[in-house]
Amino acid sequence: MVQFRNLDEAPAFRELRGLKPADLRSTLTAEAVEARKADAGGGLTFSWAASDAGDETIGLLCRLAKEQELVEKYRLLASGQRMNTGEDRMVLHHLTRGEPAGPVIRDGRNYRAFYEGERARIADFARKIHSGSLTGSTGKPFRTAVQIGIVGSDLGPRALFLALETWARTAGRTRMSARFLSNVDPDDADGIFFGLDPETTLFILVSKSGTTQETLANETLARDFLRRRGPSGLDPSRHIVAVTSETSPLARNPGYLDSFYIDDFIGGRYSSTSAVGGVILSLAFGPETFAELLEGAREADERALSPEPLRNPPLLDALLGIFERNVLGRPCVAILPYSQALSRFPAHLQQLDMESNGKQVNRDGKPVAYPTGPVVFGEPGTNGQHSFYQLLHQGTDIVPLEFIGFLENQGTLDMTVEGSTSRAKLNANLAAQIVAFAKGQDNANPNKRFPGGRPSTLLYGRSLDPRALGALLAHFENKVMFQGFAWNLNSFDQEGVQLGKVLTKQVLAGGPLDGALDALSRALGIR
Amino acid sequence: MVQFRNLDEAPAFRELRGLKPADLRSTLTAEAVEARKADAGGGLTFSWAASDAGDETIGLLCRLAKEQELVEKYRLLASGQRMNTGEDRMVLHHLTRGEPAGPVIRDGRNYRAFYEGERARIADFARKIHSGSLTGSTGKPFRTAVQIGIVGSDLGPRALFLALETWARTAGRTRMSARFLSNVDPDDADGIFFGLDPETTLFILVSKSGTTQETLANETLARDFLRRRGPSGLDPSRHIVAVTSETSPLARNPGYLDSFYIDDFIGGRYSSTSAVGGVILSLAFGPETFAELLEGAREADERALSPEPLRNPPLLDALLGIFERNVLGRPCVAILPYSQALSRFPAHLQQLDMESNGKQVNRDGKPVAYPTGPVVFGEPGTNGQHSFYQLLHQGTDIVPLEFIGFLENQGTLDMTVEGSTSRAKLNANLAAQIVAFAKGQDNANPNKRFPGGRPSTLLYGRSLDPRALGALLAHFENKVMFQGFAWNLNSFDQEGVQLGKVLTKQVLAGGPLDGALDALSRALGIR
Repeated sequence: MVQFRNLDEAPAFRELRGLKPADLRSTLTAEAVEARKADAGGGLTFSWAASDAGDETIGLLCRLAKEQELVEKYRLLASGQRMNTGEDRMVLHHLTRGEPAGPVIRDGRNYRAFYEGERARIADFARKIHSGSLTGSTGKPFRTAVQIGIVGSDLGPRALFLALETWARTAGRTRMSARFLSNVDPDDADGIFFGLDPETTLFILVSKSGTTQETLANETLARDFLRRRGPSGLDPSRHIVAVTSETSPLARNPGYLDSFYIDDFIGGRYSSTSAVGGVILSLAFGPETFAELLEGAREADERALSPEPLRNPPLLDALLGIFERNVLGRPCVAILPYSQALSRFPAHLQQLDMESNGKQVNRDGKPVAYPTGPVVFGEPGTNGQHSFYQLLHQGTDIVPLEFIGFLENQGTLDMTVEGSTSRAKLNANLAAQIVAFAKGQDNANPNKRFPGGRPSTLLYGRSLDPRALGALLAHFENKVMFQGFAWNLNSFDQEGVQLGKVLTKQVLAGGPLDGALDALSRALGIR
Repeated sequence: MVQFRNLDEAPAFRELRGLKPADLRSTLTAEAVEARKADAGGGLTFSWAASDAGDETIGLLCRLAKEQELVEKYRLLASGQRMNTGEDRMVLHHLTRGEPAGPVIRDGRNYRAFYEGERARIADFARKIHSGSLTGSTGKPFRTAVQIGIVGSDLGPRALFLALETWARTAGRTRMSARFLSNVDPDDADGIFFGLDPETTLFILVSKSGTTQETLANETLARDFLRRRGPSGLDPSRHIVAVTSETSPLARNPGYLDSFYIDDFIGGRYSSTSAVGGVILSLAFGPETFAELLEGAREADERALSPEPLRNPPLLDALLGIFERNVLGRPCVAILPYSQALSRFPAHLQQLDMESNGKQVNRDGKPVAYPTGPVVFGEPGTNGQHSFYQLLHQGTDIVPLEFIGFLENQGTLDMTVEGSTSRAKLNANLAAQIVAFAKGQDNANPNKRFPGGRPSTLLYGRSLDPRALGALLAHFENKVMFQGFAWNLNSFDQEGVQLGKVLTKQVLAGGPLDGALDALSRALGIR
């Protein structure tokens, strides 16, 4: 019987509390680079050579993983236990790409078969679009897909789309262009609709409930765009597909070209490998590309089953983060991909992590007495180097770093300038930063002194292809899950978004309001 | 004679140290919304109604401003004192838009006249491009401008370009499209060059020294693109302009169509209002648009001269941040614009703030004993609401928030859905979030409890036009400057970026290396 208990009740955590960071000037060696790494799936390797968790720390973290039964909890989750305690729901996003703990069958539904069936339906739909057998209402083939959905339905698919755009062009996999509309700010739609040809545009409306305020507002703008801007007005029902739950008003609704289904067991931020990401990625890059991404994620999910943290990268990554956050007291984490294609991946991880583990009550609703989810931020390198790295190197707080890198380009463009290619420059910068952060450098001028002692991890692979990308995504999903288990949180609800929604409705309803809310609303030109 | 001293030597700071945050449930009232606001220039208003600095705190912060002589230091800076102590340079970005402390004349050069002269040359150049009197080497008019520069030459101009793209289209000010190339990752260039017509593309190469590694690598890719992809090969010298210093190898170089000048007295992150931002913004939206932006910045710079913090928004904003960071111990700040047009503005402010004040030695090179620059991050609302706001509402750490909002749309697209426009929904969300963060809400279920006590400020204006945007930019530049003065830092150098550059060169040079650096380089496919 698996036990749920708070982090500070684990004996290993009490022992961890007294530990200091290792001295990276002596521990970051060539031998450590060789030894401290593990296969993360999808062709990726996870390196913790530049972590400041010393051998004793790692030993205790491994004990903590056992005491908190972290892998067992993953098995429970993947086997269909109701691990979303706040909403009393299963948590099944792993089943969109495999069955890490075997089949999940409830009330006659095999969930793997259900998600896989939707994936197959999407593949079929995409092939019809690509072949031109399914067209817009004027008979022209669809050229552009526009995803409309709030952020859980947006950031993940958008980050994955951007990550593969150049890869797909090079590999001859580009099938359609894609755009993403999320913000209720009407200027977002204004910018996105500009230059779109409505006759060749297919909208993908993503709303699990079919009632999301922002999404319905943007759908109305899209329908108007289709009705008014076509040559003689288009039929919106032939230009919009829905991704929704089977019980929503959008399901099997003649107002949509088709509907693909998700359910309550996959949260927005975990939905990129479901139909939420599947429709747009299959349309943009072909169903086979999306299948490869799922395969990479499945491989990473399998690595997460290993009971041995040193062979389980997301588990070890989670444990190292616990050391940084709860032992060393570091409040932030930076995600630093040395890949322009991953430009929005840090924003997705920010959502994934902060929405999952930014909680102050445990899974049973009891307050916890320790810090939980950190602030997560990041930008691609080398760009960030000329921006916030100043603070990372010489600021008064230490920010643990998660680097990501690849050996090969996605595209074909590169040249040798001053004796090295741009790729070599990029990766030389990555290697140099890891060492500079870890070891620092003394200088007689204190302003030019680098204290070092800035820990990092590195996820790297040969190339950022769909399989590597799927593994990268799943690695972080699983890391966040393991940290949530370690903290004894429910990482799968988001009650923190509710109060704002309630107050927004009050403002828009026009009734009596809290005085300050009324005054602010007036200042902002409403009421 | 102005005195420079560390924050913890100021008597007011010692008194501040004992203070607690105000209880926002009682202090955020309609009266506070009315009273706690000030004109920030450019049509913007700064509101601190939802700050948790109570009256006593604000009184002490005002004393601190006097004791640290913050406004006097701004005057010194703007009058040409060498406030960049680390590099022994003047700091003159304010002179690109005005003369807040009068003329600065050194060695016969009037700097305002110099920057204004460059602006006029740029306006002239842009008009020739727009009229078609200056064309590419095949005689076709230029349609797209591509800025090549590392992040200080990139994030600010990029954020400003995106901020005005929809506005300009609506106002009939769009003259050219613009793209930005920054990363040494060759996939960045690959993605940007794809779909560009070289015959109608003008590159803007930005490098003060003319020797920046990333920029020169990308320039080489651009020259190759021009030479090889035109119908019979284009003449790159007629498709590239340089923005550089007068002493750089790019200056008055026949390899460029023209050159515009900057100097050592404007740092990259402060260069958006110089030729670095001026060329691309004047090309994209016309010189008159850039001039309006400068006028808004000039207005904000004037507000910053007020000795009374309650009438000096950037000064007050800086002081409130000192309270959050140094008294209440809060390590981060979130920038939350309720405007999709400001999608990259938080990334620019992240650079501006973290690169300026992420320091651990004071302006004289002595270590300081208090936290300095915070981690800065953010995304536009409403998007962020469905992402990291969970942690902001219910996480274990409190993150002070800086909201930004506007009363009107930039574009023409909007509709009433369920009784309200998208604009009303957007602003209702903004007002609701301020109150939800500040006041929270109790609930019998602790998982649905909002503790409140999350402080924020709000900058708002009628519409995000060039003038408001200029003021917004200058507000934050001046806020960061005042915080640097309060902390007794030099906010204008960035020695923290140097070590990484040195180690990168070592890797690329191929000589002997630190063992770990060698092993990491091999793992990443180089050496």
